[in-house]
Amino acid sequence: MSQPSSSVPAAPGHRLVFDRYGKAEVRLVHVDRSSPQHELRDLTVSTALRGDFGAAYTAGDNAAVLPTDSQKNAVYGLAREQGVGEPEDFAGVLARSLLQTSPAASAAEITVEEHGWSRIAAGGGRAADHAFTRAGAEVRTASLVAGRDGTAVLHGGLRDLVVLKTTGSEFSGFPRDRFTTLAETDERILATSVTATWRYRDGAHAQGLDFGALWTGVRAALVTTFAGHHSLALQQTLHAMATAVLDAHPEVEEVALVMPNKHHFLVDLSPFGLDNPNAVYVAADRPYGLIEGTVRRAGAAPDAG
Amino acid sequence: MSQPSSSVPAAPGHRLVFDRYGKAEVRLVHVDRSSPQHELRDLTVSTALRGDFGAAYTAGDNAAVLPTDSQKNAVYGLAREQGVGEPEDFAGVLARSLLQTSPAASAAEITVEEHGWSRIAAGGGRAADHAFTRAGAEVRTASLVAGRDGTAVLHGGLRDLVVLKTTGSEFSGFPRDRFTTLAETDERILATSVTATWRYRDGAHAQGLDFGALWTGVRAALVTTFAGHHSLALQQTLHAMATAVLDAHPEVEEVALVMPNKHHFLVDLSPFGLDNPNAVYVAADRPYGLIEGTVRRAGAAPDAG
Amino acid sequence: MSQPSSSVPAAPGHRLVFDRYGKAEVRLVHVDRSSPQHELRDLTVSTALRGDFGAAYTAGDNAAVLPTDSQKNAVYGLAREQGVGEPEDFAGVLARSLLQTSPAASAAEITVEEHGWSRIAAGGGRAADHAFTRAGAEVRTASLVAGRDGTAVLHGGLRDLVVLKTTGSEFSGFPRDRFTTLAETDERILATSVTATWRYRDGAHAQGLDFGALWTGVRAALVTTFAGHHSLALQQTLHAMATAVLDAHPEVEEVALVMPNKHHFLVDLSPFGLDNPNAVYVAADRPYGLIEGTVRRAGAAPDAG
Amino acid sequence: MSQPSSSVPAAPGHRLVFDRYGKAEVRLVHVDRSSPQHELRDLTVSTALRGDFGAAYTAGDNAAVLPTDSQKNAVYGLAREQGVGEPEDFAGVLARSLLQTSPAASAAEITVEEHGWSRIAAGGGRAADHAFTRAGAEVRTASLVAGRDGTAVLHGGLRDLVVLKTTGSEFSGFPRDRFTTLAETDERILATSVTATWRYRDGAHAQGLDFGALWTGVRAALVTTFAGHHSLALQQTLHAMATAVLDAHPEVEEVALVMPNKHHFLVDLSPFGLDNPNAVYVAADRPYGLIEGTVRRAGAAPDAG
Repeated sequence: MSQPSSSVPAAPGHRLVFDRYGKAEVRLVHVDRSSPQHELRDLTVSTALRGDFGAAYTAGDNAAVLPTDSQKNAVYGLAREQGVGEPEDFAGVLARSLLQTSPAASAAEITVEEHGWSRIAAGGGRAADHAFTRAGAEVRTASLVAGRDGTAVLHGGLRDLVVLKTTGSEFSGFPRDRFTTLAETDERILATSVTATWRYRDGAHAQGLDFGALWTGVRAALVTTFAGHHSLALQQTLHAMATAVLDAHPEVEEVALVMPNKHHFLVDLSPFGLDNPNAVYVAADRPYGLIEGTVRRAGAAPDAG
Repeated sequence: MSQPSSSVPAAPGHRLVFDRYGKAEVRLVHVDRSSPQHELRDLTVSTALRGDFGAAYTAGDNAAVLPTDSQKNAVYGLAREQGVGEPEDFAGVLARSLLQTSPAASAAEITVEEHGWSRIAAGGGRAADHAFTRAGAEVRTASLVAGRDGTAVLHGGLRDLVVLKTTGSEFSGFPRDRFTTLAETDERILATSVTATWRYRDGAHAQGLDFGALWTGVRAALVTTFAGHHSLALQQTLHAMATAVLDAHPEVEEVALVMPNKHHFLVDLSPFGLDNPNAVYVAADRPYGLIEGTVRRAGAAPDAG
Repeated sequence: MSQPSSSVPAAPGHRLVFDRYGKAEVRLVHVDRSSPQHELRDLTVSTALRGDFGAAYTAGDNAAVLPTDSQKNAVYGLAREQGVGEPEDFAGVLARSLLQTSPAASAAEITVEEHGWSRIAAGGGRAADHAFTRAGAEVRTASLVAGRDGTAVLHGGLRDLVVLKTTGSEFSGFPRDRFTTLAETDERILATSVTATWRYRDGAHAQGLDFGALWTGVRAALVTTFAGHHSLALQQTLHAMATAVLDAHPEVEEVALVMPNKHHFLVDLSPFGLDNPNAVYVAADRPYGLIEGTVRRAGAAPDAG
Repeated sequence: MSQPSSSVPAAPGHRLVFDRYGKAEVRLVHVDRSSPQHELRDLTVSTALRGDFGAAYTAGDNAAVLPTDSQKNAVYGLAREQGVGEPEDFAGVLARSLLQTSPAASAAEITVEEHGWSRIAAGGGRAADHAFTRAGAEVRTASLVAGRDGTAVLHGGLRDLVVLKTTGSEFSGFPRDRFTTLAETDERILATSVTATWRYRDGAHAQGLDFGALWTGVRAALVTTFAGHHSLALQQTLHAMATAVLDAHPEVEEVALVMPNKHHFLVDLSPFGLDNPNAVYVAADRPYGLIEGTVRRAGAAPDAG
């Protein structure tokens, strides 16, 4: 190839103020065959590095740039060497390795999504040893930002947890501006798709927490609170769910929830001479309300992640 | 079914040889509050009419064209009037109504997708009366082609049922052409996303079949056969699954399966000095094998749908 | 592996009445560097075989099953050996090869999707030699069903061609049933996403048709007819578009169109004391009307594909 | 911007440290019929409010919660009252209105996506007055965070701008760890899907900038730089693109780019006895490199948005 390099000098007067690079969405399936009942982990892993990579941006100098292809290979190689346990733990394994093999990195950022599988019933009340169905669209998440200075910010989470209540939800007492036509209601369907992210306390990895049990516990707190809470606003339900997590799990310092209000509108059947006593609804796609909130335990530090 | 095509003389030399129109993806959620434990049905309904609609196509004459908006309204109105039971039954209600109110229609075609919901655990081993989580990405389907002449072709089905086995799957003995590099294997992950469509025998509606129980039974036959079958080819697994349905359910005359082979490839870890004894896989998105097959009960007629 | 084969004999009384298998969604990008201005083809190719493959289904006997992996390799190998021209021509190359290397196949079915790229402007009115932008979501399609007996059914097509008119569309004169509330209108937005499939006359490959020029011509006929046609119903617009293709291109024998009516509803602004003279619309996602029609040239045979 | 967080005392020991709510994905199509050639704007608008809404979260007290339904209505009503011009300007209209009608809000956050349409050619070199095709998957974006204190952070942007070069891209000189197998290359396809966000200088709204012309200019700077730049790393290309925007447009203070490296791998055809001189590639879906960077003009303040 004869084209000359045209590596652009950083134009005078501009500064690179943020940079990050890595490999996204590495699909990893790990089978543990050490017992007759196989254990399956199905993960989508993303890695990223931050640090002293400016020369690649400004001059095309890759001397410090550990290839994203190598980062992908590390996911597979480390899965073999060290196994794949809980997503939070595997994120730790990856971050430590990347910080070691990329001296220019000041921090490694790992995100892991786990796709659940359920054992197929094998008859006689037993679960199949080797056969599974996908457990649904819901995804378990974990993220770790690990600094070379030893800091670590670890989050557990989930997304696409879709929940619905047929009663126990009101919305009234709101202000009315000139564009307000909404009627007050003391009976509506409440439905949302929960995205939850919770931060574990510092040192969670070193303390040997059981992140699998914690994830199950947090999810249960979210779901049962949604089910049992009489809602005056989706905001209130969100807050109750976050609070329930903090109350149940001292290992969690902060809970962030993003909850779209997936509207279910009563259909007006009066043109057809029919009533509609909260029976027939249209489920709307767009637009949707979008309610967000983060609740932090007293004394916990702000998120440094 | 003898449904005549509206073979309308069109522009000189051209003929309209197929026409169909309707409303697609009507989102209907129905809540039955008649007992303390609410029953929830979450459906996506599509309607279509065939018949003598050529004048609309060739001349913009809408005198025979029942608006698709009216078809949508019928979905909601009939849900209120007659309730929403099994998708197959609701399809029957809709088809009868549309044939009645659209005299030009020779046939009504209804498809219903049901999105499953599971009750949230309420504590003490009880299920919540009013709160649910989405049961996953899997969708139950039903379709009905009902002719004015009284014919009816009724299918049950499902799609996006994702299953995986960690062992019990081989692929060998295949021919090799000049483009063949694939190694034979007696141990691989087998994974697929099942789309199944099964035809019920004639008169299924009139016979009062319990389509909910049948759907559960067919799904169980598919899943347990997948789990228990030692696979020499995905083709063979498909055939065993279809056969199991026919064996278990005499009400079913024909089963069509479409099963992508969702490849899981062993990662070559040898460049890193590591072995890989069926432990670490990459789950590939594309391309995928696509295996299809339809199995019919002896003596059953071909599908006229 | 010690698990015994459990190859199921076709259960007495059931018959495999349809089977097909192949490789789906092979992603192929081909660069022709033979001139300073590079030519780019970006295709998604799917192959499938039909024929005497029953033994694989019923007994797991793969002796006749050319692996789908080999079919994928053929896509890449033949792209190198014979180049990639028009999708219709490349489909022909693939089908001939597969019929040759898979003696059990009675037919090869090839579908090709082409993703368009436009040259970036290089300044001075010139187009860049080597740099491109994706030309949009629209996809060009081609399909070929080639029988061992020499028959060939060839279709060109496109999908996701989204078009909209701000005027020149009416809908009135329709019948009203008890669920009809729709108002008649002589002014509405008409929008649709066109899926078009057209069959070329027999022997199209041998006649050396220029499928690239034909595709451009058919697309132009569809689009300009949509733009110029005063619409009394989307059905009528569909028919006019199909007819225009047949009128302009004698090589085309049949045109099938699937056109969702992507509703744009006028927003009722009267609660805010505002009029809405066809200015402000909500674009609805679901439900949508779905209008279908196929127009055939006089004397042309029905589709045997 | 000094927008105070509504740090509400919540459950004992927990604090609500972030809250925001609004309406997402309001679909608005506006037709300006004031001249024979209609002007079309197709937007997806999201609104959100921050401020003193803690009582809704902690106590279900909605006295301060302007319904998201009213926010949606404001989108449609204001589109009628004030017209829809450039997305950045319409965002300003919305933000001002929401701050006025929601006294509890300390800030309004508006995001607008514009879906482009191109006029259909009408023959004779003219463009159709009333008929359009969707201009592709690319989306123009704008976002505004407007504080009650008069601060305003305004961004323009785009996403899903997919570009590809068939030559002029190298990657070499990188470090190698034990997981590195990647070969160095001086010739590869470079492809990416650009997400760009650029911040306008303070007071951009008041200065009457022509945001339409600016958007076109920024896009052109991005695309032509991608096309003309000889790339030693995608990082370098990203930096050159951001720098070109700052050089060309003094109104822009900061450019953030997110650019996945959409890998195109040369297919190894040697098993088939074929060479592959940069002709046949597989376009991979996942994983992909993900390269990010933000470049700021000297003297510009950090983003307060």
